[in-house]
Parts: sequence; structure tokens; C-alpha cells
Amino acid sequence: MNQGERLQKQIEFIKEIDKLKHILRQTVLMDGSRQENDAEHTWHLAMMAMVLLEHTPEPRPNLSKVLKMLLVHDIVEIDAGDTFAYDTAGYEDKQEREMKAAERVFGLLPEDQKQELISLWLEFEERQSLEAKYAAAIDRIQPLLHNYYTGGLSWKKHGVRSSQVLNRISGVADIAPSLYELVTGLIQDAVQKGYLQE
Amino acid sequence: MNQGERLQKQIEFIKEIDKLKHILRQTVLMDGSRQENDAEHTWHLAMMAMVLLEHTPEPRPNLSKVLKMLLVHDIVEIDAGDTFAYDTAGYEDKQEREMKAAERVFGLLPEDQKQELISLWLEFEERQSLEAKYAAAIDRIQPLLHNYYTGGLSWKKHGVRSSQVLNRISGVADIAPSLYELVTGLIQDAVQKGYLQE
Repeated sequence: MNQGERLQKQIEFIKEIDKLKHILRQTVLMDGSRQENDAEHTWHLAMMAMVLLEHTPEPRPNLSKVLKMLLVHDIVEIDAGDTFAYDTAGYEDKQEREMKAAERVFGLLPEDQKQELISLWLEFEERQSLEAKYAAAIDRIQPLLHNYYTGGLSWKKHGVRSSQVLNRISGVADIAPSLYELVTGLIQDAVQKGYLQE
Repeated sequence: MNQGERLQKQIEFIKEIDKLKHILRQTVLMDGSRQENDAEHTWHLAMMAMVLLEHTPEPRPNLSKVLKMLLVHDIVEIDAGDTFAYDTAGYEDKQEREMKAAERVFGLLPEDQKQELISLWLEFEERQSLEAKYAAAIDRIQPLLHNYYTGGLSWKKHGVRSSQVLNRISGVADIAPSLYELVTGLIQDAVQKGYLQE
């Protein structure tokens, strides 16, 4: 495949992923005005990953890898949709739906780039590397901050309990102890303030 | 300043930059449904930078630096607003408005991080390094693609002429010749199709 053909494929991919801007999440913006979409969510995570890196113990995750992983981590939702964190039924076929989506969307790219981006996404999903653990921690903390600072808008809407939130952020403890301490404090406070059920 | 105080400042910054999701651009999404905001725009640029890097000549820009630069490049618009590319009056005091915004928004962070992010932003603005030239090229190409694939929605609305668009993308030629060739071809075609004035 020559450069021109590669570029045509890349442009098709760039056009296609514009759709991530239409995938709405359950999280609402900090001012409570509307739901957040996956594209803006992803940008926010990437900024958080940059700014909070010092809270990981040495050896720290490689930030460049974390950023790339975060940038691609929700792209499969263009086809598979956003599965709400506390939707158990939605999780049953999540993996299958997302793998099919990855094949189609990343498959618009030249083969080597398709493989590279699928690998980044799978590494994120598997939560084994330092980078994946840190990226996943950030992905768990961001909606929690949005919930807390909007007085629990999305928690209340879905009747979420503190044990569910604690369970969801359990992976943060090892990769970023001070962030874990922060968010467990917010959860306690959210229960006291009635943002979140006990 | 201890870690706890640093974290509090970082969280304030993370809350504040959520506002980037409210800053609307003149560009419309690929399906023409609505205007794009700065946060989702930024995510799209970061993905483009990853996928199109091979079109830069050797020595290539450092992708990690490019990504960080892109992630922060529009944050000043939280205070300064988006200045439309072809708004000459808006450009008169753009620099002053944006510097003030940078001081305030990045100033929410601990001093070392404030300086790091302001440096990244200024490097982007100055267009001198390879990374800044490539990031700026991507920032010029993305709205052009959106315009072209929506039949010139924003070009038509603002009566933009092809000479203005060509002038705006002139910096792409050196840093990514094959991308320059692609977009000049799209501009010619856009004129023929009536998306863009001669």
C-alpha cells in the first residue's frame, strides 16, 4: 500500500471517529447542564493523567503510553455504545460487542495501525500494565468527581450505593494511594450529604 | 507545599477545565448536527496527530510532546473564547486576552505545573519547534476536513474565500507535504463544488 492509499484510509478513520462526539455518558458536566460525551470525557482524562502523574509510586507509568491508551479507550463505543458503570445486564455482552466494534472502526486504518490501536485498547481493558492501571484509575476517578461536584446528579438518578462506587474504584488504591484516599473521602462525604446511598 | 495541598490545587484545575466543553467553535460536526466544542475538538486533534505522524519528514516531531501540546492548546479559550479563524478584529487583542487567561487557569495548578503547561502552550503558539509546527498543522487541517465533508457549512455561513483557507494552511506544506497536497486538493474541489468561494 502506498502513502496515498494509507492516507485515504487514515482520513476515513478520522471522519468515522467524529461519531464519538455523539456518544453520551451518564456523567453530567460540572455545571449540571447536560450529559458529557465520550470525546470530551476522553480529553478530560488525558489532562488528568498529565496533571496527576506524581501521585503514582515509582516506577511511574509511561505518560506517553497512558495518553495514547486513554485517547483510544472509548472509540469502540461508537458501535457498542456506552455501558453504564452499574448496568449489570449491559456488561454481559459488552466484551463481544466491543471487540466487533474494534475490528470495524480500527479496521478502517492500515493494518499496522489497526493492530497498534487495538493493542492499546486491549492493554487498557486488561488492566495489567502500570499504564493500564493508571489510565483505568483516572477513568474511574473522573466520573466520581463529576458526581460529587454536581451533588450526586447521576448517582441519585440511578440509585447508586456507596458500596458500588467503592467497589468500582478499588483498583485505584495500588496505583495511586493518595488519589484513592481523596476519592474514598469524597464518597464518605457524599453519603453524609445525601448525594449517594449508604 | 505538601502532596495534599498540591492535589487540592490539581483538583481545582481539573474542575475548572471542564468549562472547555462549553466553548463552541465555528466548526460543525461531520454530520452537520451541531457546533463542535473545544474539548472534543482537542481529542480529535490528538487522535489525528497519532494517526498521521508518518506524513512528517524525518526527523519526525516527538509525538508525546505533540500530544501534550495539543491537549492544552485551547484551554485559554475558557476565558478568552474561541476566535474564529477569519475574524480579523478578534485577532487584534487575542494575544493579550489569552495570556491573561493562561495566567488564571494554569495558575490554579502548583507553580511548577503552571509553568510547564504555559510553556507547552506558548511553544504551540510560537510555531517554531517541529512539534509546534506539526500540532498547528493538525489544528488547521481538522476544521478544513469538517468543512469539506459537511459541504462547506461553516465556510458558506461566513463567506470564506479559498485564498483565506490557503493562506491559513500554508504552514502545513513544510511539516507534512503529503497532507498539504491532500488539503489543497480538497480546497480546489470545494471551490468547484461551490462549498467555498473562489
